[in-house]
Amino acid sequence: MEQIAFVVPIVGVIALAFAFWKTTWVTAQEAGDETMQTIAARIQEGAMAFLRREYTVLSYFVVVVAILLALMNIGGDTQSPIIAVSFVIGAVASGLAGWIGMKVATDANVRTTFAAQTGLVKALDVAFSGGAVMGMSVVGLALLGLGSLFIVYTGNVFGSHYSGLQISLNALTGFSMGASSIALFARVGGGIYTKAADVGADLVGKVESGLPEDDPRNPAVIADNVGDNVGDVAGMGADLFESFVGAIIGAMVLALGFDVVKGGDLGPIMLPMLVAAGGTICSIGGTFFVKTEEGGNPQHALDTGAFGAAGVMAILTFLIAALVWPSEGALVAGSSDPIMWYDVGIATVVGLLTGVAVGIVTSYYCSMDQPPVDSIANQSKTGAATNIIAGLGVGMQSTAVPIILISIGVVRAYQVADLYGVAIAALGMLSTTGIQLAVDAYGPIADNAGGIAEMSHQPPEVRERTDKLDAVGNTTAAIGKGFAIASAAMTALALFAAFIQQTGITGIDVSKPLVTACLFIGGMLPFLFSSMAMKAVGEAAMEMIEEVRRQFREIEGLLEGTAAPDTARCVDISTRAAINKMVMPGALAITSPIAVGFLFGAEALGGLLAGVTVSGVLMAIFMSNAGGAWDNAKKSFEGGGYTMDDGTVHPKGSDAHNAAVVGDTVGDPFKDTAGPSLNILVKLMSVVALVIAPVIAVSGGLGAGGLLGGFLGF
Amino acid sequence: MEQIAFVVPIVGVIALAFAFWKTTWVTAQEAGDETMQTIAARIQEGAMAFLRREYTVLSYFVVVVAILLALMNIGGDTQSPIIAVSFVIGAVASGLAGWIGMKVATDANVRTTFAAQTGLVKALDVAFSGGAVMGMSVVGLALLGLGSLFIVYTGNVFGSHYSGLQISLNALTGFSMGASSIALFARVGGGIYTKAADVGADLVGKVESGLPEDDPRNPAVIADNVGDNVGDVAGMGADLFESFVGAIIGAMVLALGFDVVKGGDLGPIMLPMLVAAGGTICSIGGTFFVKTEEGGNPQHALDTGAFGAAGVMAILTFLIAALVWPSEGALVAGSSDPIMWYDVGIATVVGLLTGVAVGIVTSYYCSMDQPPVDSIANQSKTGAATNIIAGLGVGMQSTAVPIILISIGVVRAYQVADLYGVAIAALGMLSTTGIQLAVDAYGPIADNAGGIAEMSHQPPEVRERTDKLDAVGNTTAAIGKGFAIASAAMTALALFAAFIQQTGITGIDVSKPLVTACLFIGGMLPFLFSSMAMKAVGEAAMEMIEEVRRQFREIEGLLEGTAAPDTARCVDISTRAAINKMVMPGALAITSPIAVGFLFGAEALGGLLAGVTVSGVLMAIFMSNAGGAWDNAKKSFEGGGYTMDDGTVHPKGSDAHNAAVVGDTVGDPFKDTAGPSLNILVKLMSVVALVIAPVIAVSGGLGAGGLLGGFLGF
Repeated sequence: MEQIAFVVPIVGVIALAFAFWKTTWVTAQEAGDETMQTIAARIQEGAMAFLRREYTVLSYFVVVVAILLALMNIGGDTQSPIIAVSFVIGAVASGLAGWIGMKVATDANVRTTFAAQTGLVKALDVAFSGGAVMGMSVVGLALLGLGSLFIVYTGNVFGSHYSGLQISLNALTGFSMGASSIALFARVGGGIYTKAADVGADLVGKVESGLPEDDPRNPAVIADNVGDNVGDVAGMGADLFESFVGAIIGAMVLALGFDVVKGGDLGPIMLPMLVAAGGTICSIGGTFFVKTEEGGNPQHALDTGAFGAAGVMAILTFLIAALVWPSEGALVAGSSDPIMWYDVGIATVVGLLTGVAVGIVTSYYCSMDQPPVDSIANQSKTGAATNIIAGLGVGMQSTAVPIILISIGVVRAYQVADLYGVAIAALGMLSTTGIQLAVDAYGPIADNAGGIAEMSHQPPEVRERTDKLDAVGNTTAAIGKGFAIASAAMTALALFAAFIQQTGITGIDVSKPLVTACLFIGGMLPFLFSSMAMKAVGEAAMEMIEEVRRQFREIEGLLEGTAAPDTARCVDISTRAAINKMVMPGALAITSPIAVGFLFGAEALGGLLAGVTVSGVLMAIFMSNAGGAWDNAKKSFEGGGYTMDDGTVHPKGSDAHNAAVVGDTVGDPFKDTAGPSLNILVKLMSVVALVIAPVIAVSGGLGAGGLLGGFLGF
Repeated sequence: MEQIAFVVPIVGVIALAFAFWKTTWVTAQEAGDETMQTIAARIQEGAMAFLRREYTVLSYFVVVVAILLALMNIGGDTQSPIIAVSFVIGAVASGLAGWIGMKVATDANVRTTFAAQTGLVKALDVAFSGGAVMGMSVVGLALLGLGSLFIVYTGNVFGSHYSGLQISLNALTGFSMGASSIALFARVGGGIYTKAADVGADLVGKVESGLPEDDPRNPAVIADNVGDNVGDVAGMGADLFESFVGAIIGAMVLALGFDVVKGGDLGPIMLPMLVAAGGTICSIGGTFFVKTEEGGNPQHALDTGAFGAAGVMAILTFLIAALVWPSEGALVAGSSDPIMWYDVGIATVVGLLTGVAVGIVTSYYCSMDQPPVDSIANQSKTGAATNIIAGLGVGMQSTAVPIILISIGVVRAYQVADLYGVAIAALGMLSTTGIQLAVDAYGPIADNAGGIAEMSHQPPEVRERTDKLDAVGNTTAAIGKGFAIASAAMTALALFAAFIQQTGITGIDVSKPLVTACLFIGGMLPFLFSSMAMKAVGEAAMEMIEEVRRQFREIEGLLEGTAAPDTARCVDISTRAAINKMVMPGALAITSPIAVGFLFGAEALGGLLAGVTVSGVLMAIFMSNAGGAWDNAKKSFEGGGYTMDDGTVHPKGSDAHNAAVVGDTVGDPFKDTAGPSLNILVKLMSVVALVIAPVIAVSGGLGAGGLLGGFLGF
């Protein structure tokens, strides 16, 4: 049985080899004329410079946390240093995935522009191949890292008997914590960067000066294109790396609760990794179906690849479960109803259905020509204030159905396969991360390709083709967004359940005042966290706006196109803001569970996590959907103008359109900075809790009340 | 001992007599010339017409719910009809308090304007007397209703032995539910009314047409002034009526858990009513200290009255506790540390300190010339979008310290006097509701007086005096807002604890998936509720804006002042929107705990309540403070203009000021519709749960899983 674990790193290597092959292919493509190459080089330089500065700061953070982890007496002297090592490997793997993905994405953008000169087929191929490198690097590094560490820890370090497994999995949570920490910083930093640039470029360039999107005279336009890469490629890569790893590890730790595992059967522990490996094979297979023909619909190609892979995976899960699951089933403590192999398969299907359903609802709330976006567009007629009120209302309303769907999914997954089922449901959505991320990362590459086309004055049909590429993938992306939200909620709950199991507490009773207090404080953290992200974007955007206004005012001939803008200063504003402002939110996320856990004990920390998860998931849905709806309400005015309910037509540039631009700008940090970061926040805090679980465990740890709780009389 | 209960209705009658005396005095004042009287009559007519229509709709609701309550088999056939009767009495008392308060407020406004012709002293006296009528009517009716019902139920219906007490208090929760239901509708309806009118009047009148505040040419100006009354007077009156009653009843029900009460000592049950009665006497006394002299500072007068009453009350609580508390102390089940009379006094002080501290923080976040408001004002320079982003950030950030303070308050109050202490802490903040509400209701009267001065073309010094009256009371109001938030959180927790006690469940374990699911759904409800309120305001405001624009366009001579606006249509728009749009949110609040309780049982309902309370309190703080901060950021530009950090001065009417007006408009439904309604929502849902507690109790009820939970296998 243990030998089957070798499948995991091997699939990881296959995915990386595939990524390498795609990289070679992409870089071998023609990169166009000198103007195009110069612009692309500026984007790539800006992006790589940002990553270098970001990683420099993060390396200090990683070293400090690793030392602290090594010094913490988690389950004895051997274990702590190994958790620290896992943490560093997780952090490095996540960072490396981001680096590779972004390097190739910034190679692929200009090659996509060039390919678009000849036609759509080749352009799709280049852009999607660039995205596939990101996707496969992420899952490849995750499987290679997780699989190898698992084999080394259970084989050579701690052993594969039950207590060895317990320690090994605890050490693996260090890997997850490393990945999650980097993800949070990457998302927050990337989100601040991209939105500061975007807001600056849009508000002054488009609204005040009337320049079109991506106009080379706009000083913030390079920063805007860099932002697409650091936010949407590197940030998202790190994000999905941590989701993928978190879902796998949550399920593995929960498998420790099965009687058969205690009896020496490793099946339930291996299954999550094998499902992830299977999903990766499906993803690689899926990429071959992403082909279109001239005049064809690239949307269809992306859907075939992504949904095909997920569908095949659902079936494959049943096969994997039939193969490795104990034939007599597995029991959790206190239950007499064994969980069978098909229950595990059903949990995957529950997860997939929940993800798709949440995706459809998300898409309803954010799509043009649907009532929510129409209501925002209509209320733009009376100005920015009513547009904003409508958007906030839509965002808040949009929490209702997804939360009910997620709740049903959680209850149903629990019914079929206990808490392990909740983790498997999350993994069901994330197992095909490879291709989902390829589709997601394809978006900013196509977007960048359009920008380069505009800036290098390509003939209009080139821009039309890149616009067509950019416009598709929305359905796929909306479903992907649904997967991200639903899987974050479920992964957080699975990690939360794993935390309870590892600490040995019997429950988290929110009717106890100390737990209630921690529930409140936990609920508050996503608000505080979002406020930091919002303020960072607001302040950086303001600085950017001032700088762009200054350049238009002071650089003679800029608007006439006879002088070049100073794009480097705009890049610098975004970079500085992102690096400086990502530190505090990240530190908050990591230190608060540690402080509460040590001071008040495991149950109080459980209350904190419950609060963070509930309000974090709600705020994430609210902010993401409000932002998406504002974005499309604004887009409703573009093209031929927007016809309101009263029959009046409001073209681009009308008062109503300008009001909608204000809404879109407010929505930018909502949907691209604070919202997605919250998905990571809820998981990171649970992972940190899981790492320190042995120290604050009821038996052998600090005791139920923590250092201070006992003193306070709880 | 039982005889002392008669103190409660007697103090209620005294408060009502005081209110009657003040009413007579106010109406005996001179109401000014015919123009003033005509304007005042239009405001009063609009306000009373709205209340009539609102109460007509609510009477259907009250009858239906009363019938359902009577038919529900809560603890046997006798009890259900009596709960229904209590419910009706609570609803009527709350409605009556709103009616009296608003009638007198709309008499006092024009008399304040007239008094301001001669000086500040008399004007303050008239305005504050009008507010005092509202304050004393609310607490008088609450004490009279609660005290009488308690005496009748324990004396004549169910008896004063322990089981009789249990039933009596359950019947009294019906009174609280009646009050809370009306409060929610009044707050939501009033909030929609006032903000639709306000947004309409501001955006078109002030921004587009450049008219000053309260200009008689503005068609929405009468609706705006009516709105101040129906939102800020009647809405707030119903709100504080339910807070006052909820805090008293929560503490009374929790007293059932004491050993001494089981042994026949009524002291801990009577104490909350007696503290409320004592606070009312202090409030009446406090009103006599609200006097100023010509050229004096009315702020000082209000502070002396309100804080003096609260300070005296803190001491008085110790005396009341010493008098009625069992001398050997009282024990809760499972504890060996008796709660003594002074512990109860300390809990009051904990509540007061928490309320004051939250008030100070609230005031910091919402005050001009403090960093949060300054940051919003500064970010207005780059337009409405950055202003909105900054305001949302400030609002989110402002949740942090209040939540920590409330958490500390809850834990500390629990330490001194168990869960009863949490309820007493809430009551400590609310016992002087009489004078706090007098101060709150004074604000809109002074505001209206200014409006009437403007519309009736009074000499400038009259408007200056009313403006001075309007400007003060801000500190007192900020502290009052802190009290409202902190006491809502604590009252909700007390009611929540009372619910757990009454259902006999042992805890609310959020690590159980069904409870987790309900926690999520509960957390979502405040978002859904707020979205309904926001959308209602947005849509009604849009209709109002269109109507005002139409009138300016179609009524010739309106802007020149030669033709009169059609103010009745604007009044009608607000009235219709408020009545139609208040129904759904109210129904949501009442039906959801019933549905969850019956379908999934008591523990699941507990999870729902925990979710509602956490996210409701957070959203309430976020929305109230963001709204308050935007308001003052806008006001920073008025007067001599605002000097930004870079030294530039931006006067009224500048781009930055206009951007700040957009922010203020977005903040209007935040701070005056959704935000305060959430304070009621969290309590109303807990009260509804408390009313149905006997039916869903673990023993003798539907069982732990509810109708559906057992079927689902929980």
